[in-house]
Parts: sequence; C-alpha cells; structure tokens
Amino acid sequence: MADTDEAYVLRPVGRVVSPLTDAASAPRQGDEGAPAAWLVFDPSVERAVRDLSVGAEMLVLTWLDRARRDVLVVHPRGDEGRPETGVFNTRSPHRPNPIGLHLVRVLAVDGLRVRVADLEALDGTPVLDVKPVLGAVDER
Amino acid sequence: MADTDEAYVLRPVGRVVSPLTDAASAPRQGDEGAPAAWLVFDPSVERAVRDLSVGAEMLVLTWLDRARRDVLVVHPRGDEGRPETGVFNTRSPHRPNPIGLHLVRVLAVDGLRVRVADLEALDGTPVLDVKPVLGAVDER
Repeated sequence: MADTDEAYVLRPVGRVVSPLTDAASAPRQGDEGAPAAWLVFDPSVERAVRDLSVGAEMLVLTWLDRARRDVLVVHPRGDEGRPETGVFNTRSPHRPNPIGLHLVRVLAVDGLRVRVADLEALDGTPVLDVKPVLGAVDER
Repeated sequence: MADTDEAYVLRPVGRVVSPLTDAASAPRQGDEGAPAAWLVFDPSVERAVRDLSVGAEMLVLTWLDRARRDVLVVHPRGDEGRPETGVFNTRSPHRPNPIGLHLVRVLAVDGLRVRVADLEALDGTPVLDVKPVLGAVDER
C-alpha cells in the first residue's frame, strides 16, 4: 500500500549559525538550555523570509545531517534504563527522515539573517522551512 | 553563507488514506473540520511504528506532493483582500520544501495502519515522519 519507491529532493533554504558544535554536549530540546542562534537564509528565498517579525513564535524545520537514518528503535534520551521505543514515539534525531522540528522565538531580523532564541540545532545544520505557530481558528 | 547546492533525499515511510481527494474542498487545517484518516506505513518501518498508542497526540510530517515549490509569497488563506505575505510566515502548502505539519490524535492502531483524527492531508499524500508532542521537561 505504501509505495516508498519514490523519493523527494529537499533543497536547504538556509543554515544554522550557532555556538553549538558538538552533539554530545548540546541540549536535547530547545527549552532545555539551548542558546540563541542565527538562521542565515539563501538570497533565493528573500521574499519568503520578509514577513518574519521580532517576538513571533515560529517552527523551524531542519535537516539533521549528522543523524543516522537506519535507526528504528532507541532508548529514549539515550537512557539505557528505559525500554527500547519505536522512533516515531520519540524525538530522537535518528529516524528514517531526520527532520528536526524546533519551536523558537524571533529575537531580531536583519534581512536574510534571523536571530532566534532556544535553538538546539548544531552549527551548520541545513534549514528546510519556517512556519508560524497556528493561533486560534478565527485569527488565521 | 547558506550553501544550498547540496540536496537531501526523502523516502516516504507511508501514505495517507483519506476520503479527501480534492485540494479545493479540503479544510485548510486539521482543526477546521478535517476527517479521520489512516496512516498506512511501509513494512520496512514496522519497528519505528510499534509504540504509537491510542489517545496520544502526535505530529505527522508529510510531503505535500501537489504543492508548488516556486511560490515565495501568497495571499494568506487565498484571500486576495489580504496583503501578500512571505510563505515562511504562512501555512501555505506552496513553499520551497512543501513539508506538511499536522497535529493529530491517534484513534486506533492496527499494526502498520494507524487511524488518526483531524487530518487535512489529501488521500495518497506521502508520510515522512511521526513525532510525539513534547510534554513538560521533567516528563520527557
């Protein structure tokens, strides 16, 4: 039923510039002590970026390029004392399509450079997409 | 700075089976009257799926295969009366990497078939990933 023969090609729209360079010491989630970082967008997507505003909460999607794609079960949070769990019920970076999902707050916008709080992605991580957090239905 | 020459290849892990077949009449978001649907996973990811449980709120990531990738600004919600907005500040399906992000609730699990409420994705849409909604830091 699920025809997985086809493939889709992602092209990064930018990149994370962050003081975080080492996965082992990086926070596991943005709200666990992650630093501020820059999203540096490609000039080709300038018009897509232009309406980001300071203070907004946004979802950033990244490609976790240092993750493994052949991992289907993990011990949650790397804790061997916890039972192995299917990765679709965890936030492990290791998964068949390692797309990172990060809730951030915009701190500054400088053209193609957007500064955000609370991003646990490593320096150099490719950015795939940015979406606003959905508000109430009648405010969309 | 943002080197967008490289590309990453997504391989679907499953597919949406839904009564929704027509984008023009589909709800714009899951909480705007979207129906229940099945996520039908590929046998190759059976172990990743196994810990999904009925009642859980999950995030489903899809590849919006009927979206345009060359659109950088849109009138939000297709309303010509609203000013053009960069797609990174909208939930438009049309965007450089058309990844859909859907908050759903699991209604039933039957092996590789998972029934979910409130999914606005069209029938046949490729599923890329499933993640749990993050709870409080001390419950992770």
